[in-house]
Amino acid sequence: MKTLIIVSHPNLEHSVINAECINALSSHRDAYTVHHLDKVYPDGKIDVKAEQALVEQHGTVILQFPIYWFSCPPLLKQWLDDVLTHGWAYGSQAVAFKGRKMGLAVSHGTPKNDYQATGRIQHTLTEVLTPFQSIANYIGAHYLPPFTTQAVDTTQVLEANFERMMNDAKQSAQALLEHLQQHA
Amino acid sequence: MKTLIIVSHPNLEHSVINAECINALSSHRDAYTVHHLDKVYPDGKIDVKAEQALVEQHGTVILQFPIYWFSCPPLLKQWLDDVLTHGWAYGSQAVAFKGRKMGLAVSHGTPKNDYQATGRIQHTLTEVLTPFQSIANYIGAHYLPPFTTQAVDTTQVLEANFERMMNDAKQSAQALLEHLQQHA
Repeated sequence: MKTLIIVSHPNLEHSVINAECINALSSHRDAYTVHHLDKVYPDGKIDVKAEQALVEQHGTVILQFPIYWFSCPPLLKQWLDDVLTHGWAYGSQAVAFKGRKMGLAVSHGTPKNDYQATGRIQHTLTEVLTPFQSIANYIGAHYLPPFTTQAVDTTQVLEANFERMMNDAKQSAQALLEHLQQHA
Repeated sequence: MKTLIIVSHPNLEHSVINAECINALSSHRDAYTVHHLDKVYPDGKIDVKAEQALVEQHGTVILQFPIYWFSCPPLLKQWLDDVLTHGWAYGSQAVAFKGRKMGLAVSHGTPKNDYQATGRIQHTLTEVLTPFQSIANYIGAHYLPPFTTQAVDTTQVLEANFERMMNDAKQSAQALLEHLQQHA
């Protein structure tokens, strides 16, 4: 079954890494469905039945987002709160995610070195992403190792560095494809 | 200065604990301002300048919410993403939260026993709430010990237990007041 990539990115037009990853995934339509919540639900009102049907039509589910304040954007939280209903995602009768793989593909603005006990964040990226692992555990999904990549601050990129930035983005996208081929 | 209680609760009309806590806090208007995001921003469009001014007019900031899927409701995430701007909340010139206390008052539906390495969640409540501690660190706030209380599933409460449930809620509200008197 195809892998469902649920994208939540309030500023995709200013994104480099996430946009490039979406481009790369979209060129493999046989393997991946890219589902961009901000495009599908600009008013934030999520169609729960449609989303549950979409999950059921796919295999692995990947949540792709930029980390803002150490979590996902609000629209993805809305999706989680609305779509993961009792009786479907959890509860004794729920089977939607049982045995299904679930993973993250996230970009982080703060440098990776800051994400350690002795760093500025005082926690590792894995620790900061604990709530998503807890969700996977709770709904009986198999939590994949998260794919993490350093975001680019596009306001800081000089024209001279543009080509290098785009090369880095393409490399990240390629790394995501390889990560998914290995794990999803 | 007064303590600002920022409440985010999409279903406050069905809440027992959180509603009782808000009642208790609201009866001490000299000490606490209760700011209910769902009431102020039913359309989800947050007035950033007004919110920043509100924070500046207060001392300690408490985020009060029910834990849904191991994090805050989407409207509070929207508040964090919108209001904690560069130059105001973080960055070399930012002073808004420097030395200010920041804490959580949360209710959790899943029993406390599930929140341990060997429990159903496989993580403690403190670990699950790590992103909020990271936010406090990042903006230079002093993170208070979180006030946590077990939520009541109102659909499961028989009429015979109603009085006990309300007594429990009042005790939780009293415990929150004592917690804030000690820490805030």
